[in-house]
Amino acid sequence: MNTLEELRNRLDKIDKELIEKYKERMEISKEVGEIKVEMGREVLDPIREQEKINQVTEGFQDPFLKTGIAELYQQLFTQSRMLQYQVFINRGEDAKQGFQEVDEIAGKGKRVIYQGVQGAYSHQAARDFFGEDAFYTNVTTFKDAFEAVREGRGDYAVLPMENSSAGKVGDVYDLLVKYDLSIVGEIVLPISHTLSGVESSSIESIERVYSHNQAIMQSKEFLNQHPKWELNSMENTALAAKFVSEANDPRYGAICSEEASKLYQLKVLAKEINQVDNNSTRFVVVSKAKIYRKDAEKISVCIELPHETGSLYRILSHVIFNGLNMTKILSRPIKHKTWEYRFFLDFEGNLKDGSVQNALIGIENESRKLKIFGNY
Amino acid sequence: MNTLEELRNRLDKIDKELIEKYKERMEISKEVGEIKVEMGREVLDPIREQEKINQVTEGFQDPFLKTGIAELYQQLFTQSRMLQYQVFINRGEDAKQGFQEVDEIAGKGKRVIYQGVQGAYSHQAARDFFGEDAFYTNVTTFKDAFEAVREGRGDYAVLPMENSSAGKVGDVYDLLVKYDLSIVGEIVLPISHTLSGVESSSIESIERVYSHNQAIMQSKEFLNQHPKWELNSMENTALAAKFVSEANDPRYGAICSEEASKLYQLKVLAKEINQVDNNSTRFVVVSKAKIYRKDAEKISVCIELPHETGSLYRILSHVIFNGLNMTKILSRPIKHKTWEYRFFLDFEGNLKDGSVQNALIGIENESRKLKIFGNY
Repeated sequence: MNTLEELRNRLDKIDKELIEKYKERMEISKEVGEIKVEMGREVLDPIREQEKINQVTEGFQDPFLKTGIAELYQQLFTQSRMLQYQVFINRGEDAKQGFQEVDEIAGKGKRVIYQGVQGAYSHQAARDFFGEDAFYTNVTTFKDAFEAVREGRGDYAVLPMENSSAGKVGDVYDLLVKYDLSIVGEIVLPISHTLSGVESSSIESIERVYSHNQAIMQSKEFLNQHPKWELNSMENTALAAKFVSEANDPRYGAICSEEASKLYQLKVLAKEINQVDNNSTRFVVVSKAKIYRKDAEKISVCIELPHETGSLYRILSHVIFNGLNMTKILSRPIKHKTWEYRFFLDFEGNLKDGSVQNALIGIENESRKLKIFGNY
Repeated sequence: MNTLEELRNRLDKIDKELIEKYKERMEISKEVGEIKVEMGREVLDPIREQEKINQVTEGFQDPFLKTGIAELYQQLFTQSRMLQYQVFINRGEDAKQGFQEVDEIAGKGKRVIYQGVQGAYSHQAARDFFGEDAFYTNVTTFKDAFEAVREGRGDYAVLPMENSSAGKVGDVYDLLVKYDLSIVGEIVLPISHTLSGVESSSIESIERVYSHNQAIMQSKEFLNQHPKWELNSMENTALAAKFVSEANDPRYGAICSEEASKLYQLKVLAKEINQVDNNSTRFVVVSKAKIYRKDAEKISVCIELPHETGSLYRILSHVIFNGLNMTKILSRPIKHKTWEYRFFLDFEGNLKDGSVQNALIGIENESRKLKIFGNY
């Protein structure tokens, strides 16, 4: 029986030799790459790679070793290809897909569309981002917002990335693909609900409360202190405020933002009535122009892949190898294409970073389709 | 200048030697693993692995090679650990987390809770799954459904996995974690909307249409043929049917399921009015009992990971290495833990499969937390 130390000494010796072989292999691969690029051949050659895997696993019976060797070579190939993609970058090619760097996304004089009614949280998010000198208008659905921006009737649209009655997160992603718009900014808005009523109302006069279902649920602890109140769900919080204002009845209360309360001339009866664990919503700003702030630090992409074991894994290897931090991943089957998948990835970085370019060139070459949603 | 063929011949020679070293390394690793398990030591030893990476990358200046070697060794370690986890399996340990195999999930005499109103699609989904011999009741929110099942007031709950006004997809996942319930089944329900009205109504008499926003959007093409109709959004499709029934006005129409139309004694004026690309919704069945059908073919898990480059990648390697097909992936930050993430994975397989056990044992040992949501 070998001791742990003896075994580890043997490993150290093997590792030296293994590294030597690895280094030689990468050097030759680099030469192969240069020849391939010169000949105008694709870097990724799945048939040749499969042949090599068949060759190196030949004669192995143990399924574990067979799989292990295949995995090992998949990784060596990926690394070789990354080295070969460098040739493209050295030639001045990039994977920016036409995105142009700008100093800032300014709101002055711009036409900004938000989805939702006046006084909705998306209205507030839009104003937070673009400020006083922009022009605002609202539409009903995500699709309306996308169409208006595509057709140039607005410069930017602000949309919630959380679920709402007007659409789902996934819908925004699908629309970004369909309308070829880009994300140029995001707003994380602290959500703070008020209970508001008309001028003549007070906490004591309230008998019925109106709001969106989610806002009601978020304010459950507060509402539990008033068990006699009748709760009524409405399409959104701003509509609830409008309804209470028009009803002009001191028995009615609305759960809504402070902004909506003000807009519909209501009186705030209680502030910050929602629980702290539901305290923010994310909104994105989309535009037709492909631009990114020079200090943008998050990249969102959409990748289409065949439904094969390992296809996502290999794509992620480009992100990992380049040391990029992934912050979000989401899969979605592609409609009408049962065995293909669309993945949405967010990772940290700026389009002008070398590591980001390396990763994107690799992903672009090894997926069915790569679309950069934006860098913001 | 070397020709492509010369270079490839040199690669073939290097690969033979590389494979030889790989094989030797795996054999020694296996011995190391056996000693470690005997000594009661953890299979994963991040400090020792980091030392080894420092050792093998020592003396390399090229950042590409340095990263490449580190990646290569990460993979060799992962493979060695997989081999070492086999020792646990050979000892009869498993990663089933107490799940018991059953022949079927029978509905006879069972108390089934669905989220939503009578006649809602979730009601239909529940009936499709459990049949005529079960007892049904409904609750308002996802949370109510989970609480009822946890407290034993119901045997099963049926919940939509799409977004709805009662909650979001992510909420169901969070509730599965919080209430420690399991998924034991799923129903993919074809969604087919009708336009329904009271007995005295006809397509010609309709002036106002009531339904849930999403159903209205899904039926847009049909509604576009009737531009004069006024569209009104309600909380859900079944409530719309109920409202039209109670109003008893031939000018009112509801977009709802055939089931809801029947339940509220309405007359179907038009069938299948929704577009084909929104034609199904997925529901899950949750239970307190940890059971899985012997022919179950999909596994859903929740994995908690630190937010480090590569942590997800290494977890996925267990899925890939064992040849399992991943069908869904979703990330979600953990509330109050800014730098930790929760991932939801679906992959194909049955808990009694060797490949599934191998993958789960690896994932369990290398993540902060693994929870099997279910096999169904």
